[in-house]
Amino acid sequence: DSKLKIFSLNSNYPLAQEIAELMGVELGKSSVKHFSDGEIQISIEESIRGCDVFIVQSTSAPVNEHLMELLIMVDAVKRASARTVNVVIPYYGYARQDRKAKAREPITAKLVANLLETAGATRVIVLDLHAPQIQGFFDILIDHLMAVPLLSQYFKEKLSGEDVVIVSPDHGGVTRARKMAERLKAPIAIIDKRRPKPNVAEVMNIVGNVEGKVCILIDDIIDTAGTITIGANALIESGAKEVYACCSHPVLSGPAIERIENSAIKELVVTNTIQLSEEKMSPKIKQLSVANLMAEAISRVYENKSVSTLFD
Amino acid sequence: DSKLKIFSLNSNYPLAQEIAELMGVELGKSSVKHFSDGEIQISIEESIRGCDVFIVQSTSAPVNEHLMELLIMVDAVKRASARTVNVVIPYYGYARQDRKAKAREPITAKLVANLLETAGATRVIVLDLHAPQIQGFFDILIDHLMAVPLLSQYFKEKLSGEDVVIVSPDHGGVTRARKMAERLKAPIAIIDKRRPKPNVAEVMNIVGNVEGKVCILIDDIIDTAGTITIGANALIESGAKEVYACCSHPVLSGPAIERIENSAIKELVVTNTIQLSEEKMSPKIKQLSVANLMAEAISRVYENKSVSTLFD
Ligand SMILES: Nc1ncnc2c1ncn2[C@@H]1O[C@H](COP(=O)(O)O)[C@@H](O)[C@H]1O
Ligand SMILES: Nc1ncnc2c1ncn2[C@@H]1O[C@H](COP(=O)(O)O)[C@@H](O)[C@H]1O
Repeated sequence: DSKLKIFSLNSNYPLAQEIAELMGVELGKSSVKHFSDGEIQISIEESIRGCDVFIVQSTSAPVNEHLMELLIMVDAVKRASARTVNVVIPYYGYARQDRKAKAREPITAKLVANLLETAGATRVIVLDLHAPQIQGFFDILIDHLMAVPLLSQYFKEKLSGEDVVIVSPDHGGVTRARKMAERLKAPIAIIDKRRPKPNVAEVMNIVGNVEGKVCILIDDIIDTAGTITIGANALIESGAKEVYACCSHPVLSGPAIERIENSAIKELVVTNTIQLSEEKMSPKIKQLSVANLMAEAISRVYENKSVSTLFD
Repeated sequence: DSKLKIFSLNSNYPLAQEIAELMGVELGKSSVKHFSDGEIQISIEESIRGCDVFIVQSTSAPVNEHLMELLIMVDAVKRASARTVNVVIPYYGYARQDRKAKAREPITAKLVANLLETAGATRVIVLDLHAPQIQGFFDILIDHLMAVPLLSQYFKEKLSGEDVVIVSPDHGGVTRARKMAERLKAPIAIIDKRRPKPNVAEVMNIVGNVEGKVCILIDDIIDTAGTITIGANALIESGAKEVYACCSHPVLSGPAIERIENSAIKELVVTNTIQLSEEKMSPKIKQLSVANLMAEAISRVYENKSVSTLFD
């Protein structure tokens, strides 16, 4: 019988801590520091020989720093004779570079998968990959969790009795909106952007009925928040009563917070796959924890039970 | 007949530019930028189909950024149907993490070798690896160049007629000092540190005769410059006439510049494997270029000629 050990790296210590508490274990003792020249120095301060080790790390910004921390930790854990090396990546960075959109582009999402395997990861737990196809980039086992149930539950309670419509901010997100709509027993709408000619402003058209309704925009990642805030404003112009927005991964880079605060969005509901810095803690943003979901997934993997019922 | 293409990433553009000029080619058109969230965006702006591509990048600080640039570029070059993907790494970061010195340490120098191979590198050209054994971490071809001839030539001209002794700042560097001594037809000396008991100050003992002589300290990496400046001062105390120092890789982190400026070192001679920022350009530091050596190595690899005569 092998022992469970959970380690946190530097990207999201509070989430790892919450997971460990829910599971009734202490986080493994380790430290990630830097040498004077900036090279990462990892030290694992307890024996993990024969253990099932879970390393919690989001590859959020600074992404290259966090990814290298993870790769070096995987190497250290493997060489310390762990039985299995499971990487828990609540937010999988570089996921948008998942295909060659133009000639001579890298496919960095695939590269990262290969790097993790090369370092020695034996299993991966992720949540809401930008494209579910990224699962196929791995030759090792991968469990793909979803935040839709968590986000849906929140809105179900908050907006009970309201006339709700779930809105996808673009074509690519319709499946995700559909999943939430089923849970809320609500209809869907789609914001349909199209550029009539090159170098001509986009035309925005709302497919579906939003008039007088409470809209919930849903996306996987909100990064600079351009799409979501323009969409929210367009919904209000089309007669929506109120607009909420939600996403799994609050990247929120560059002008995101300013845009959200100046937009028609009443509340933005996100998860804690990415730790929000002080300056991103807008009063408009509500953060729900995926710790329960993650803890459950880790328990099931550790106990060799099926994780797939957690998938949606 | 395949075409040669040389690309530079962001760590050391001037060196790559100099190499390309010496070889009479233009650097390949490419750009390494960042998305709003800090993820690396690489674009290669010319066809490299069927080409022998050489990517010049030192994995100097910020090491994780530079390493990821390199890995993503290798992926992009490979997917753009290059014939060979050669990585030229004048300074190989993480080289000091080349063994498990303590329990549960990573071996990051080996990890990096594996990552480069996984990304798609087909050959590697490096200079003065911290330990020559790191060559064996690669399963692909590796060429290992040395800066000793370049550094020796400089001092031969500068100190002709002087009574010179080559000094290794520690036990580990004696082989390197020996190589330089042969070229300068000079004797060697060793700074022999030892700690009589734990938690007792180190005792420094100079093995060899330095009295009245011009000393040249040689190391591979000078990082915080503690060893080299303490060594230089000890040599002067032991009656040395003057102390010069030299190294291949001027990491020069933390207090390095201040220590060098306040030390007995008359001049520190380094190479340009690492680009020095403005604030590291001390008047005491002289930088020699490895561009010629690198250009010669690239030419020979490209023309499928032996590189080994460049090895020392
Ligand atoms: N970190 C990033 N930030 C913004 N855009 C990105 C990022 N990574 C990749 N992309 C681009 O986003 C596009 C993919 O997004 P999507 O169409 O939503 O799947 C590709 O054209 C990528 O070039
Ligand atoms: N970037 C770094 N800066 C300072 N020390 C390091 C660095 N990387 C590794 N080390 C340590 O340096 C030692 C190896 O140096 P050496 O004995 O000179 O080969 C090991 O104990 C490492 O833990």
